[in-house]
Amino acid sequence: MPFVNIRITREGATPEQKQQLIKGVTDLLEDVLGKNRKTTFVIIDEVDTDNWGIGGEQVTELRKK
Amino acid sequence: MPFVNIRITREGATPEQKQQLIKGVTDLLEDVLGKNRKTTFVIIDEVDTDNWGIGGEQVTELRKK
Amino acid sequence: MPFVNIRITREGATPEQKQQLIKGVTDLLEDVLGKNRKTTFVIIDEVDTDNWGIGGEQVTELRKK
Amino acid sequence: MPFVNIRITREGATPEQKQQLIKGVTDLLEDVLGKNRKTTFVIIDEVDTDNWGIGGEQVTELRKK
Amino acid sequence: MPFVNIRITREGATPEQKQQLIKGVTDLLEDVLGKNRKTTFVIIDEVDTDNWGIGGEQVTELRKK
Amino acid sequence: MPFVNIRITREGATPEQKQQLIKGVTDLLEDVLGKNRKTTFVIIDEVDTDNWGIGGEQVTELRKK
Repeated sequence: MPFVNIRITREGATPEQKQQLIKGVTDLLEDVLGKNRKTTFVIIDEVDTDNWGIGGEQVTELRKK
Repeated sequence: MPFVNIRITREGATPEQKQQLIKGVTDLLEDVLGKNRKTTFVIIDEVDTDNWGIGGEQVTELRKK
Repeated sequence: MPFVNIRITREGATPEQKQQLIKGVTDLLEDVLGKNRKTTFVIIDEVDTDNWGIGGEQVTELRKK
Repeated sequence: MPFVNIRITREGATPEQKQQLIKGVTDLLEDVLGKNRKTTFVIIDEVDTDNWGIGGEQVTELRKK
Repeated sequence: MPFVNIRITREGATPEQKQQLIKGVTDLLEDVLGKNRKTTFVIIDEVDTDNWGIGGEQVTELRKK
Repeated sequence: MPFVNIRITREGATPEQKQQLIKGVTDLLEDVLGKNRKTTFVIIDEVDTDNWGIGGEQVTELRKK
């Protein structure tokens, strides 16, 4: 029953890529810890680049450099 | 001063239903632990069904089955 | 498949009280939104009072007042 | 490598204000704990006022009072 | 710069297993979305089985069945 | 009513430093967004270095280099 929250910037991840992330993380938890797939939750949050900062700067600004 | 985060799929929860969830959780914490309603926070996050996986699959796909 | 995270200060909540919170929240989501109990997750995090601030002060200090 | 998540109601915070929050928190962690700016993450989540409850009521309703 | 939070019950995951999870998730985000490893954060939270509920019951109780 | 969650590695932050973080973040939200101090929550989570990964490696290992 793991719960995994993946937070990425909102920069065009496709439904197929999200499915790959969900399956990949579920497989990983099954392989490494033997966790039950049926009760493994994965939630992907996409965050606007204005709302994500690294090094004290918004990603929006970092992308311009 | 509890903080409660409820994460549900974005599938049409109405403002009234959200109010019921907020009140219900606040009542529960007051009843069970005697917590002060005035400083009980409840945040509801609604997640797209593409972004929520269970059993290694997106809810969008599970809903089709 | 809701996911609920309850954060409270670490001030002696008993296993029975935690069970009441888990059952209460699960019932609430079933009643209000018709959610499936079997895939409703509830996680309770207990936070040291040094690590929780409200009004700019640690709860440890607030408790002394 | 701190990770900071700021959750506020969605009530018109401007890009400039978000930048101030990101810089301010990054400075604070550098000053207080000597943390490396380059690996300090700050994420701001904006939450609809229907989805945020305090004292058992939605902020949308509280704002009307 | 993805941020991944893995929440599992506190049931004896070893340092080596945690390393496998960290590396596996980082590889996955690099492979699927081309994310930069150097700014990929993974945090593993281990939760007491009294504090994790599924189906309205504490995992501690579920494990007894 | 902001909610701020600060996640840092468990590496000896003192109660005084935690108080500085709590006050600093609360001041920042008041100054930048005019938020009410009395309903500003700050929670600090300290994470074991085995449980925090960056660049695909546990901080425990990175600290050895």
